[in-house]
Amino acid sequence: MTTYDTLWAELEPIGRDPGTGGYRRFAFDTAELDCREWFISTAEARGLDVETDRNGNLWAWWVPAGVDASRPALVIGSHLDSVPDGGAYDGPLGVVSAFAALDAVRADAVKPDRPLAVVAFADEEGARFGIACAGSRLMTGQLSADKARSLVGRDGITMAEAMRSAGFDPGSLGPDPDRVARIGEFLELHIEQGRNLIEQGAAVGVAESIWPHGRYRFTFRGVADHAGTTRMQDRHDPMVAYAHAALAADAAARAADGRATFGRIEVEPNGTNAVPSVVRAWLDARAADQPALDALVERISGGASDGARSSGTQVEVSTESTTPLLSFDVSLRDRVAAVVAASGTTGASGGVPVLPTAAGHDAGILTSVGVRAAMLFVRNPTGISHSPSEFAEPVDCNAGVDALAAVVTDLASGDDR
Amino acid sequence: MTTYDTLWAELEPIGRDPGTGGYRRFAFDTAELDCREWFISTAEARGLDVETDRNGNLWAWWVPAGVDASRPALVIGSHLDSVPDGGAYDGPLGVVSAFAALDAVRADAVKPDRPLAVVAFADEEGARFGIACAGSRLMTGQLSADKARSLVGRDGITMAEAMRSAGFDPGSLGPDPDRVARIGEFLELHIEQGRNLIEQGAAVGVAESIWPHGRYRFTFRGVADHAGTTRMQDRHDPMVAYAHAALAADAAARAADGRATFGRIEVEPNGTNAVPSVVRAWLDARAADQPALDALVERISGGASDGARSSGTQVEVSTESTTPLLSFDVSLRDRVAAVVAASGTTGASGGVPVLPTAAGHDAGILTSVGVRAAMLFVRNPTGISHSPSEFAEPVDCNAGVDALAAVVTDLASGDDR
Repeated sequence: MTTYDTLWAELEPIGRDPGTGGYRRFAFDTAELDCREWFISTAEARGLDVETDRNGNLWAWWVPAGVDASRPALVIGSHLDSVPDGGAYDGPLGVVSAFAALDAVRADAVKPDRPLAVVAFADEEGARFGIACAGSRLMTGQLSADKARSLVGRDGITMAEAMRSAGFDPGSLGPDPDRVARIGEFLELHIEQGRNLIEQGAAVGVAESIWPHGRYRFTFRGVADHAGTTRMQDRHDPMVAYAHAALAADAAARAADGRATFGRIEVEPNGTNAVPSVVRAWLDARAADQPALDALVERISGGASDGARSSGTQVEVSTESTTPLLSFDVSLRDRVAAVVAASGTTGASGGVPVLPTAAGHDAGILTSVGVRAAMLFVRNPTGISHSPSEFAEPVDCNAGVDALAAVVTDLASGDDR
Repeated sequence: MTTYDTLWAELEPIGRDPGTGGYRRFAFDTAELDCREWFISTAEARGLDVETDRNGNLWAWWVPAGVDASRPALVIGSHLDSVPDGGAYDGPLGVVSAFAALDAVRADAVKPDRPLAVVAFADEEGARFGIACAGSRLMTGQLSADKARSLVGRDGITMAEAMRSAGFDPGSLGPDPDRVARIGEFLELHIEQGRNLIEQGAAVGVAESIWPHGRYRFTFRGVADHAGTTRMQDRHDPMVAYAHAALAADAAARAADGRATFGRIEVEPNGTNAVPSVVRAWLDARAADQPALDALVERISGGASDGARSSGTQVEVSTESTTPLLSFDVSLRDRVAAVVAASGTTGASGGVPVLPTAAGHDAGILTSVGVRAAMLFVRNPTGISHSPSEFAEPVDCNAGVDALAAVVTDLASGDDR
């Protein structure tokens, strides 16, 4: 068994639902705290210095003998939390691979000229409190501490309360510019959430950019009424308006080669024999560039308005969050791609694929404040992610570790910095 | 203030949500128990003998002096529970009017020749445990005690547990043939759930029949996936299939002059950035006769199948409950209509409207086992029901009491039985 295999086997059972096989590792809940315990014991077993920063992000530091601890560090990692019924790989693969790559680098007796760290950012998915990449956004000042503390999960518990229950101090939340300044480069390895690598026959790829995306709340308001006695022509049924919007979203995203998803909906009163009074639906929309995203959301909003008009209801669209197009540092990306291609770990003859991604990542948050960051992707045979059936072959995961170790060795060897 | 006005003012605040103005009086919960307390104290204040039967239905008996208590009784009443965020009138208007009509009959020194009772049937809406008219169905053997006890509400509590917590014995549930045999006639007064009376200019109407109706569960199964990274053409999104079904239901019901409503939906995992794995939606469908209802459900199921096919998902349709067309006893209906017309309480010149209804009622359950039952409807100025804005003018409610008192006087006077 490789180090990767061993670490993976330790982490995999934590927070897995025995019924669905999916994961429920939500910020500061029991399963996520168990993942943190795993991180700490894994780091301590390697003699790394572990710390939890003021925003709940976990760091495991290796300052090699003779290295100036104040030099900008090479940081590798990802996150440990999941979406509801998520897969095992989105996040944890990057953390496990970081520890395994560190082991490989040390086993090869590489002498880094600066500190290295493994990081696990807190609450990347935003599954509990609704804001993705909360840990890195707080650290970089893109999410205010006051706003974070007052975010309320579906269980009615605020982030502040959840942190306190888990033994963290919500009063410590806030920007951490000194820590950000210590990051020389950040490398995040991640399972691919799509089918590019399987189609190109490569085990490993490198990220080019992150599509702009946004989350929008559509609130359809009608009139609650008796499902049996109210004639169809007398109704103001917001569910009908919503159905128009859902089909408009699907059609518009297909036409624009973008993405549009209504994955979450809340209905009032949600009774079988009652025409609803309110339907709230959340749209996740993404596209290759900002004008394309704007046009997509415009078309879907138009479909929702048409649906509202024809059903005698009202619709209100509000933007919950937006993230602009983000291109990773070009020189770092090219260097990472060259090292990965030279390492022979991709298993492909044509070098290493360089891919855009439609998912947000902590590496994107860091890039947006000027940190040099890069991402490696590991092949996903089905392309499925955010699902219990998310999967990567162990041989590809080990190739990912080898690629990451090669990049770390190259970047940390200090020859050209 | 009339007796109606006084009783209405007592009952109206119980279980009203201060935010929505709607009611949440669910079987055996706190608000519903408070309504029961109101029933008991109202009956006791009138010297009536109160009993709660084995199925949780409340009875308040008046056996006038010299009357044989074993004679078939004239029973009047309705129910006290509500749908989620329901209105004040659906159910309670019939119970309040029954007490007020009884007061009027006694004030007029009418000498009934048989027992009279006011009844409040338990759990008519089925809002908590999913089966409408549970109290009258249990009493008449149309719902088995074992099935009722094991029904689970959305809070995960079974009917047996809910009854026990509320101080009732779930072991006592079951058919009550002797009690059913004691009912000579049942009269249920109800707010109209539609606009027939407002259009015909009458304060009071009489029921002709209850449309057949059914509840059907549509389960759409797809594949959970990442909302950002999964290309539209790679998706198996059950929300898209559901949206097709919802629009098919609306169109088919309009075309057939029936009713079709998807008022309740459950999504898994219900996350903004996840393509859902499962969407469950409940259809309430009704039509004027059985062939029309069958054709309507067939068309909607076809629309759901088309939606599933085009979205690469599966749909399964299961019937949760069905109720056939039900015509009220013709001779009783004609007699009630004649008495109401003669009473002058309708306020209309053309006599009393006789109306079909698309809603189920305890009067229908009793009719289906051969009990002679009739219904009076009170004008609803908007037609809206199962909503906080459900409303009837006090003058019309008092007209309903007068009409009911006239019918009780006629039926209980014993001249032709």
